Amino acid sequence: MKVTIVGYGNMGTGLATSLAKTEHQVVITGRDLEKAQQLAARLGDKVRVLPETEAASDADLIIATAPYAEQVDALAKLGDLAGKIVIDISNPLKPDYSGLALGHTTSAAEEIAKALPGAKVIKAFNTIFAAIFSEDPDFGHGTKVQVFYAGDDDKSKRRVEEMIESMGFLPVDAGPLSNARNLEPIGMQNIWFGFTAKQGTGIAPVWLPRHY
Amino acid sequence: MKVTIVGYGNMGTGLATSLAKTEHQVVITGRDLEKAQQLAARLGDKVRVLPETEAASDADLIIATAPYAEQVDALAKLGDLAGKIVIDISNPLKPDYSGLALGHTTSAAEEIAKALPGAKVIKAFNTIFAAIFSEDPDFGHGTKVQVFYAGDDDKSKRRVEEMIESMGFLPVDAGPLSNARNLEPIGMQNIWFGFTAKQGTGIAPVWLPRHY
Repeated sequence: MKVTIVGYGNMGTGLATSLAKTEHQVVITGRDLEKAQQLAARLGDKVRVLPETEAASDADLIIATAPYAEQVDALAKLGDLAGKIVIDISNPLKPDYSGLALGHTTSAAEEIAKALPGAKVIKAFNTIFAAIFSEDPDFGHGTKVQVFYAGDDDKSKRRVEEMIESMGFLPVDAGPLSNARNLEPIGMQNIWFGFTAKQGTGIAPVWLPRHY
Repeated sequence: MKVTIVGYGNMGTGLATSLAKTEHQVVITGRDLEKAQQLAARLGDKVRVLPETEAASDADLIIATAPYAEQVDALAKLGDLAGKIVIDISNPLKPDYSGLALGHTTSAAEEIAKALPGAKVIKAFNTIFAAIFSEDPDFGHGTKVQVFYAGDDDKSKRRVEEMIESMGFLPVDAGPLSNARNLEPIGMQNIWFGFTAKQGTGIAPVWLPRHY
């Protein structure tokens, strides 16, 4: 396939590096063709550079790697993309990385905290299917099911952590209570995989390190 | 610790079953004490039932397992919870399970799709750190890094899947483009773990099955 990568930042460079090892034809494009050319030269013959106006017409796949705020403008320079497959890789972060700037305004945990003044609300267990509790929390290869917990009171978080650990799970500190805006969609995606995609309830999301 | 579980549905039952095996003292409470009593009887001596009005005063941890829409009311029956640790396990689902009913209104991918009429926008790679591309996509034990992709055009999704596979990753169909409302928060949480919690960029979220 012909794959056009728009942008040559960290992600554009990573994708181009990975795709250069495949049989696909790779085109890099963007505002600064000289910079694109430097990257292409490092990656060998399979990677070409084309100006933005010529980079889309022939492409089977277009990967948009600009930051979200610039992405529509960056894609507009490629011309009409009707019928084209465009892969959006962006995370629309707030400038301070504290959360998503787009589409996400609150969470069940935060609403419950508002309704219970003075209570120390902790989000936890929402990415765990009930079926997991009655079976071995070790999924194999020493990998325990991770239970993510988020909250704003450190002392309370330590007690919840202790309880999670006593149940045989691996407690994972997922940050402040506002990160329930991340954990609840993870729970939602878990439900989508389990029920909608019919993978069943014997699955769980975990964060793995390389060579775990 | 003294742990009070509010509710005895699937999740309440699962949590009680798991906690009954630990050294913690478990109390079950809720609207239907007879039902709670049946569950407690199955779980042995460590699990007691208390009426809602008496279940919180002594508790170190309170786990709220009612569906989100009923949770604030269910907790209100326990009395004043100021100073108490309350664990919220809910996912505020839409009635048809298609997404979250609370706090989540759009995604970068959907906004980009709106801005590019006719283009087939696919969300992908937003949970992958750039550093992953230049190293082995096998994280150990045969577990490949998963690349989640979401979109509304099946034919386009198959081509993206093919590209992901050619790069050595495991492509995982994550559903319709609106599931970018889940994938972007997963990317956000990944960034939180990698940068804010300083775990570094050699991590990735994956969904594991039991005994993988």
